[in-house]
Amino acid sequence: MKNIIVGQSGGPTSVINSSLLGVFKTAKDLKCDKIYGMVHGIKGLLDKDIVDLREQIKTDLDMDLLKRTPSSFLGSCRYKLPDIEGNEETYKKIFEILDEYKIDAFFYIGGNDSMDTIKKLTDYGNSIKSPIRFMGVPKTIDNDLAMTDHTPGYGSAAKYIAATMKEIICDGLVYDYPVVTIVEVMGRNAGWLTAASALARGEDCSGVDMIFLPEIPFNIDLFLKKTGELLKENRSLVIAVSEGVKVKDGRYVCELADHVEYVDSFGHKQLSGTARYLASRVATAYGVKTRAIELSSLQRCAAHMTSRIDITEAFNTGGAAVKAALNGLTGHVITLKRVSEDPYMCITEPQDVHLIANVEKKVPLEWISDDGTFVKEELVHYIRPLIQAEIAPLWVDGLPRHLKIQR
Amino acid sequence: MKNIIVGQSGGPTSVINSSLLGVFKTAKDLKCDKIYGMVHGIKGLLDKDIVDLREQIKTDLDMDLLKRTPSSFLGSCRYKLPDIEGNEETYKKIFEILDEYKIDAFFYIGGNDSMDTIKKLTDYGNSIKSPIRFMGVPKTIDNDLAMTDHTPGYGSAAKYIAATMKEIICDGLVYDYPVVTIVEVMGRNAGWLTAASALARGEDCSGVDMIFLPEIPFNIDLFLKKTGELLKENRSLVIAVSEGVKVKDGRYVCELADHVEYVDSFGHKQLSGTARYLASRVATAYGVKTRAIELSSLQRCAAHMTSRIDITEAFNTGGAAVKAALNGLTGHVITLKRVSEDPYMCITEPQDVHLIANVEKKVPLEWISDDGTFVKEELVHYIRPLIQAEIAPLWVDGLPRHLKIQR
Repeated sequence: MKNIIVGQSGGPTSVINSSLLGVFKTAKDLKCDKIYGMVHGIKGLLDKDIVDLREQIKTDLDMDLLKRTPSSFLGSCRYKLPDIEGNEETYKKIFEILDEYKIDAFFYIGGNDSMDTIKKLTDYGNSIKSPIRFMGVPKTIDNDLAMTDHTPGYGSAAKYIAATMKEIICDGLVYDYPVVTIVEVMGRNAGWLTAASALARGEDCSGVDMIFLPEIPFNIDLFLKKTGELLKENRSLVIAVSEGVKVKDGRYVCELADHVEYVDSFGHKQLSGTARYLASRVATAYGVKTRAIELSSLQRCAAHMTSRIDITEAFNTGGAAVKAALNGLTGHVITLKRVSEDPYMCITEPQDVHLIANVEKKVPLEWISDDGTFVKEELVHYIRPLIQAEIAPLWVDGLPRHLKIQR
Repeated sequence: MKNIIVGQSGGPTSVINSSLLGVFKTAKDLKCDKIYGMVHGIKGLLDKDIVDLREQIKTDLDMDLLKRTPSSFLGSCRYKLPDIEGNEETYKKIFEILDEYKIDAFFYIGGNDSMDTIKKLTDYGNSIKSPIRFMGVPKTIDNDLAMTDHTPGYGSAAKYIAATMKEIICDGLVYDYPVVTIVEVMGRNAGWLTAASALARGEDCSGVDMIFLPEIPFNIDLFLKKTGELLKENRSLVIAVSEGVKVKDGRYVCELADHVEYVDSFGHKQLSGTARYLASRVATAYGVKTRAIELSSLQRCAAHMTSRIDITEAFNTGGAAVKAALNGLTGHVITLKRVSEDPYMCITEPQDVHLIANVEKKVPLEWISDDGTFVKEELVHYIRPLIQAEIAPLWVDGLPRHLKIQR
C-alpha cells in the first residue's frame, strides 16, 4: 500500500493527460492507496493545493474523456525550483508536505525545466536520505529532450501541423493569382515542430515549398531569392518557418519588426510576428498577395486530432514511471527507445535525470538540406511513425467532450 | 441527354466540394451527358479552361475523398461580371462558349458575389432568349446570404470555431496566473461566425467570456471595463472578436493600430490585427499576460472537422439545383428552409436570384445582448443543429487524404 502524488508542469501538449492517466491507472492497478494530484505542479504542492485523483477520475468514461482533454488537467506552472544551496528552506517545506501526505513516490510530467525539478528533488532527497522516489515523465511538443527517441506530445503536434499544412496548401491554390503563405510554427531553439510540415507532401499534396528551422541562421536574402524563383513556377507557395529563426547576428527575425517582447520567469522571450514580418518582405519584394498564419497555441491543444501512437506512448511512459518507482527506482526519467525501424517499435527505458535535465536536443544538422531551406528524407522517416493512427473525439452535441477538474 | 457545367467561386468552405459532388452525382444519376467543370469559375470559362468531371471523379472512393477535400476542387475566382449595359461583348463571349460546349444548364457554387454572376447571366440569357438555365448553389462560411435559413459551409466553420474555442479555453486555464486570450474570427460585416463561439459553453466548459460582433459599434472603453471586471473573478478570459468590428466613427478596430491594408477586386479590405491590437490594450491597462489568436483561413479549410449536417445539406443544395434546372427552372438559387425546430429539419427551396444577389444578411440585433458583449440563447439555439454529427477523414499514413484535380 503506497501513496503517490503526480503533477504536470510547463506548457501543455494534447496528450499530457494521457501520461497522467498512465500514472493514475497504473497506480490504481498496482493497488496504490492514495493517488494525489498537485494542482498547478510544484507550486500547488507548496500551497497544499492537492486533489484526490480517485475523486476526479471515477469511471471508465472519465478515463476515456481524460485522454481526449487538451491542456493540463491538473493545471501547470512555470515555477523553477531554486538551487538547493542557500535555499534549503524551500526543500524542507516540500519534504514536510510530502511527509504529511505520507507520499512514497512523486511523479512530474513535463519538459526540460520540469526534469530540473525532479533532479533537484532527487538530489535533496538523497542528501537527507529520504525514502521518497522521484520520477520524471517526459512531455513536450518541442521534442527537445535529450536521451529519448522523441517526447510524448510531439507526435500529435506533428500530426496537427502536417494535416493543417495540407489544408492550407489546398486553400492557397484556390485562386488563379499568386499567393505566398507564411506559416509560423512553434519552436524556440529546436525546429522539430516546423520540420513536421514536411510530412504534408504526398500523393495528393505537393507539400510545403520551404522549411526554415532555428538550427540554421536565417538568411533573408536567400529566403527572398528562393521565394522569387519558386514564384516563377508556382501559383501558390506555402512556407513553414519556426518562430525561433534568428539572423546571423543572433537577433530573432521577429525582432527585426516592431514587436513587444515578453520574458517569462525562465527568461524565455515570447516570440511572434516572424510570419507577418516575412510576409511583408515578400509582398514588398514581389508585389504578390501574402498571408501570415500563426498556428499559435492550437499546436499544443488540438486534442481533437491526436496521434494514437502518441496517446499510447504517453500513457505507457506514465505507467512505466509508476512501475519503476514502486520497484524502488528514483531520480530517473522514463524515455522512449526506438528498438526497430520499419516496422517502428518503441519501448520505455528509464534514464538518469541528471543526463536529461536542462539539456536541449536540436534537429541534427545532417537532417537539414544544405542550403537550409528544407529538411531531408531522414527527418521525415524519423517523424512519420509518430503521427500514425487516430483516436476520435467523444462527440457530444456536436463538439468534443472533455473532462473538467472538480474543485 | 443534357450537358451541364459547374463552377465554384469566392472564398472556399470546408464543404464547397460536397456541393460540387451534389451537382456531379445528381447530374450523373439523372443521365446527363457531359458534366463539365470550370477551372477558377467564370474566369476559367472565359479562358475555356474546362475539365470533364467524369474524368476527375471516377470512383466511389473519389466521391468520398471529394467530400473531405478542403478548398475549391475546381479552383475559384473573385472575378465580378461587369454590368450588362455597355459590356455586351463579355456576355456574348460567355454565351458563345456555352453554345460551343452545347451547355443546357450552368451551376455556380458561391456566395453573394457569385449569385450576382447568376443574376446577370440569367438577365442576359433572358434578353437574348437563350434556353440555357442558370442556377445558384449557395455557399459561404459567412452565413450572410438572404432568403435562406443558413448557408452550406457555415455549420462546419461554426463547429470548427466552437470546438477550437473549447480547446483554447482549456489551454488558457493551464497556468495559475491571469491570462487574457483574444481570438479573432472571420466576418467582415456579419457576426455569424464569431457568434458560433458561444456554442463552446456547456457541461464541461465555462465558455468564452465575451463576444463582439460587427453588427454593434465596438466600444473600447466598455470592452476594457468589462475585461477588468471579469479579471477580478476569473483567472483566464477568452474573448471572441470579429475581424470586422468597427468603432463608432466607422473605422475598423484593426485600423487603429499600425496595419497594412489590402483591397481586393470587389473593394473589400483585408482585415487582421484586431486581436493583436485589443490584446495590447488589455496588457497595457491591466498588466496581465495576453495572447492574440487569429483563426485565419483554418476556419474555411479545416476539412478534417466538418459537420455532417452541413455536408449533407451542401450535397442536397447541389443536387436540388440540377433537378430543378433539368425540370426547366432558371434564375434561381437553392436555399435552405427550416421546416421544423426541435427536431431540426431543413428542406431545399428555390428562390429567385434577384432577391438574393448582393444582399447581406446580418445577425438580428435582438439576438445580441443589450450591452453588445455577448449573444442571446436564441442565436445559440439557431446554430446548434447546424454543427451536429461528424464525418471522419479518410486517414492515409497518418494524415487526411484529399482529392486533387488532374490537369
